[in-house]
Amino acid sequence: MPNVPPHVVIVGGGFAGLEATRALARDPVRITLIDRGNHHLFQPLLYQVATAGLSSADIAAPLRHILRRQRNVEVRMAEVEGIDADARTLTLDGGLTLGFDHLVLAAGATHAYFGNDHWAAHAPGLKTLDDALHLRRRMLIAFERAEAERDPEARAAWLSFAVVGGGPTGVELAGTLAEIARRTLRREFRNIDPAQAQVRLIEAGDRVLSSFPEDLSQRAQAQLERLGVKVLTGAPVTDLDAEGYCRDGQRVAARTVIWAAGVAASPLGALLDAPRDRAGRVRVTPELTVPGRPWLHVAGDLAAVESDGRPVPGIAPAAKQMGRHVAANIRAALGGRRASPFVYRDHGNLATIGRMAAVVHLGRLKLSGVVAWWFWLFAHVFFLIGFRNRMVVLLNWTVSYWTDQRAARIILGPAPEVGPRAQIEDAAAQASDSMAARPSTPDASPD
Amino acid sequence: MPNVPPHVVIVGGGFAGLEATRALARDPVRITLIDRGNHHLFQPLLYQVATAGLSSADIAAPLRHILRRQRNVEVRMAEVEGIDADARTLTLDGGLTLGFDHLVLAAGATHAYFGNDHWAAHAPGLKTLDDALHLRRRMLIAFERAEAERDPEARAAWLSFAVVGGGPTGVELAGTLAEIARRTLRREFRNIDPAQAQVRLIEAGDRVLSSFPEDLSQRAQAQLERLGVKVLTGAPVTDLDAEGYCRDGQRVAARTVIWAAGVAASPLGALLDAPRDRAGRVRVTPELTVPGRPWLHVAGDLAAVESDGRPVPGIAPAAKQMGRHVAANIRAALGGRRASPFVYRDHGNLATIGRMAAVVHLGRLKLSGVVAWWFWLFAHVFFLIGFRNRMVVLLNWTVSYWTDQRAARIILGPAPEVGPRAQIEDAAAQASDSMAARPSTPDASPD
Repeated sequence: MPNVPPHVVIVGGGFAGLEATRALARDPVRITLIDRGNHHLFQPLLYQVATAGLSSADIAAPLRHILRRQRNVEVRMAEVEGIDADARTLTLDGGLTLGFDHLVLAAGATHAYFGNDHWAAHAPGLKTLDDALHLRRRMLIAFERAEAERDPEARAAWLSFAVVGGGPTGVELAGTLAEIARRTLRREFRNIDPAQAQVRLIEAGDRVLSSFPEDLSQRAQAQLERLGVKVLTGAPVTDLDAEGYCRDGQRVAARTVIWAAGVAASPLGALLDAPRDRAGRVRVTPELTVPGRPWLHVAGDLAAVESDGRPVPGIAPAAKQMGRHVAANIRAALGGRRASPFVYRDHGNLATIGRMAAVVHLGRLKLSGVVAWWFWLFAHVFFLIGFRNRMVVLLNWTVSYWTDQRAARIILGPAPEVGPRAQIEDAAAQASDSMAARPSTPDASPD
Repeated sequence: MPNVPPHVVIVGGGFAGLEATRALARDPVRITLIDRGNHHLFQPLLYQVATAGLSSADIAAPLRHILRRQRNVEVRMAEVEGIDADARTLTLDGGLTLGFDHLVLAAGATHAYFGNDHWAAHAPGLKTLDDALHLRRRMLIAFERAEAERDPEARAAWLSFAVVGGGPTGVELAGTLAEIARRTLRREFRNIDPAQAQVRLIEAGDRVLSSFPEDLSQRAQAQLERLGVKVLTGAPVTDLDAEGYCRDGQRVAARTVIWAAGVAASPLGALLDAPRDRAGRVRVTPELTVPGRPWLHVAGDLAAVESDGRPVPGIAPAAKQMGRHVAANIRAALGGRRASPFVYRDHGNLATIGRMAAVVHLGRLKLSGVVAWWFWLFAHVFFLIGFRNRMVVLLNWTVSYWTDQRAARIILGPAPEVGPRAQIEDAAAQASDSMAARPSTPDASPD
């Protein structure tokens, strides 16, 4: 048998998986990077695609293209269907089986509905580009339906938006939604005033951005309220359907509910036969491996690990650090050296809120408002992959902030996806009735 | 009853409908512009979205946004379901009925399979943004499948692309596909050489670009061949399925077939109770109205009309001219004046072929190659709606032409849409088998 270099299989082309792949560029290994999509996604800007500020291609790049010069890696677009931890094999969709010497599982996270999976249809979450385009369609169509609706109550329901979950994603989405309603859509409708839209941000805990110090949470809430968001803390959503939600014993009409509350680890974690925490994350050793199986590495949002006695947060910089660390441990193992424990280096915490508003927490430094926003902008644009992406994103944002416009307000895909079909037809029938009854519309008659 | 201004309903927000709407901006009319999407699409660049050079938002803009300052227009996103030509009413989806004084039907065209509608599933066409994203997905996934495929014959079938129809769209798609295979994807795959991809352009007639003078057709063909496209004229495709097509008595394996051969008028033309030609276009009077009903106007690709004894072509400048002319005739009718016949002003004919290659026919001027390509570029970017779009498109193209990269190579939507599901699984199973049998892959074993 020829002398074949060890095979490292990396599952997931997100921050952790891509960083591990790159860190092994000069090592004598063969790498197979498996992802079910064809692209690396710059997830921190995903909310901008959902809110029509950026296009998909602005925040994503094909993995093949990013890695085209790294000759020791083969990129494969496929789904993982099974892992045999001891035989060291992995099965892909279609039945192909790959052997490996080391496996890096970096499959990330998905949204969780805490046992209420039927809510998913009414309150979509935001983890992938397809999720973002779906949210964009829902949001834009809600304003279209409101414009066509003649019944004031039904119209108000279309103009009622709720974001569930006061973490960074929820805060970004709520702030941007308010901005769209108050600024972007101004003057474009004839029957509604988009600024009348209600944007509610619902947080079960007692403050938004709970991973930040308390005073920054307060400042974030004040900035959200200035943008027109109603912030509701201290009680969770208890029910949800296509027409609205219940909270604190009250039913609120809202045709667009967005889920930013729960995160669960990728189901691939369950294939590992290893202990997991409540969110489904794999409880790894300090060396980021599965206990007793040092050839199984877990990195990124899928790994539950502590550093300095505190859990490592599920954010991009932590995922990148884990990816690099896992690569170093693989290198050590192949060289006969011992693996080292992971130490998280906290480079700070950022969250954007909306137009010229953000909060930044960096050690002792706390920023909020315009300064924090500029900090956030440059940090994010700097880390985008690819020169073109940076240029396009900066250009889009420059034009947006001068004109209040958002570039990507294009509805793609099949239109009526807001709730069950029957309800849409009901709403339309009501529109028809009430329009016919409207005295100032002499040319409208019921069919 | 109060003095209500006359109601003009315009169906279709393409070049003809949008131009008619804008031309009536200062007239004392109420306009309702109806489109089933929310955007105006710059169709001449649609092939660039299909071939991953541009994003949807680069070539589309929300109709509401374009028309936000025109106070006499209401934009409505809806589908037209019925027209009563004499009662002057129009029914929308959901049952709402609108009355009108003048109707402008500018609903455009769709693709036609000449009685072989079952071909649509295997050979998608290109008319909308959703079509373009579907084609993009098909094309990118074909290369992914080829990379994963171990059987040489099956792999060759994934690398075999056919474009049916040698008009401007077919020529653009074939030229760009060849460019992607030869330049963009170079070095990104490990098991295939994308430059081995076969791109065939099939034209039933005796030359490509038959609306151009013969010598320009020849030059276009030469330029296509230089880019690596095999041009096949003189015989039509006689059968088509998920595995390939038949032509001239021969079966050719091709997993990606694109339909650019037939155009049919929008089915809305059939609602008018008016004579139509074979392609379903409404045979209008020289004034662009339905015979005997001067309040029913038809403009753009849906209208069959002659000017100077020759049929007016289905291209963007003709649609815009018709839109303006219809607006002038409505103004005349409302002022008690007579409608005037439409005269088409031919400003020339342009088609792009690929990297630095195009043909231009302007009266006596005939250009081809690089000069024609620059001419084409500036003509198109100039007519794009919106400053931002122009900047982004120019930026994307500048980067593309320096780096051979295409910005939007992102696969969106559900992945396995290439042919029936069973065939994909077959192909994958074959890949598995042949990979297991491959001696140089010691770690691959069948499941």
